[in-house]
Amino acid sequence: MSDATAGDRPPMHVTIALPDWAATFVASASNERLRDDDARMAFVLELARRNVREGTGGPFAAAVFARRDGALIAIGVNRVVPEQCSVAHGEMLAIMTAQHRAATHDLSTVEGGCELVTSTEPCAMCLGAIPWSGVSRIVCGARDVDARAIGFDEGAKPNDWVGSLRDRGIEVVRDVRHEEAVAVLQGYADGGGELYNAGGR
Amino acid sequence: MSDATAGDRPPMHVTIALPDWAATFVASASNERLRDDDARMAFVLELARRNVREGTGGPFAAAVFARRDGALIAIGVNRVVPEQCSVAHGEMLAIMTAQHRAATHDLSTVEGGCELVTSTEPCAMCLGAIPWSGVSRIVCGARDVDARAIGFDEGAKPNDWVGSLRDRGIEVVRDVRHEEAVAVLQGYADGGGELYNAGGR
Repeated sequence: MSDATAGDRPPMHVTIALPDWAATFVASASNERLRDDDARMAFVLELARRNVREGTGGPFAAAVFARRDGALIAIGVNRVVPEQCSVAHGEMLAIMTAQHRAATHDLSTVEGGCELVTSTEPCAMCLGAIPWSGVSRIVCGARDVDARAIGFDEGAKPNDWVGSLRDRGIEVVRDVRHEEAVAVLQGYADGGGELYNAGGR
Repeated sequence: MSDATAGDRPPMHVTIALPDWAATFVASASNERLRDDDARMAFVLELARRNVREGTGGPFAAAVFARRDGALIAIGVNRVVPEQCSVAHGEMLAIMTAQHRAATHDLSTVEGGCELVTSTEPCAMCLGAIPWSGVSRIVCGARDVDARAIGFDEGAKPNDWVGSLRDRGIEVVRDVRHEEAVAVLQGYADGGGELYNAGGR
């Protein structure tokens, strides 16, 4: 049991960090290979696999790219357990670090707009975060049903969640490198990866 | 227009801070006056009003309390615009700072459990975040329809979102100090507060 009120006072800030290996990983990625959905998804899936292999979080990754030229703006990987933060899903970290870099809470103000590429379709929280982020396009690998089939909790999403994004002018692309994306999830589960509690994904 | 890829590299961490006045505000709150839902909501509404008055964010606040004794664990206020982070809703900051203090991604491990008290019912993102957080009870002031009526975007929530939380064993209490909570939102709008873009709330 945690003792949540011993000693210290309510914290006045929170910091969430990506893994130590991430900076080197990103430095080695050239824009050259990230020109289309397939290449960008391959990059994100490699991030997810690396996160599992290094033991630095769950099998989920995401990245934000500039739509104008495909330039990488920011990345995210699942950091829920190591960072002790249930909000630290890959998509959330990619969005927050992209906004930090662009110095705006609204990525629609980036020239040409931004897109979020995610290894698995968003859970209920990340889905809710997408319209607020200002991205105008999302690209997904594994489906939420794939994640559910393996035992991950995706939360209560609106029935037509794809339609709800499209109604807001957000383009949704699904099933990019789908088989490979499902294999990342399955590999994690097969390897004994923690399908942590009700509180995490 | 932001230039999101000039110069620097993808950020490797993100920090979200509460306003400077928050530490003093919290230090003056005794557990004595936070013994029931009404007192805890009064505290949260005062946080929301103070956030507006100080110009440090939108008219939304939240706090996490230990259910065992009503002790304050952490607070959050809307910091979207000043912190350049669309994720920085009051509920999200309260959850993240509470988890940081309790040193766990799962607040259900705090003895007796935790509850989230929020000045307005959660938007789609915060609703999705609640089950992942491990809180076992939420207490709400204004309804989402009140926020929508004033012009705030709450996002696409499942039709029976209250039922979806209750099905997960999360108690939902609504309309605590409801009129006062709506007045906080209305006061913000009447005062010319920014009902910022599609990207924010």
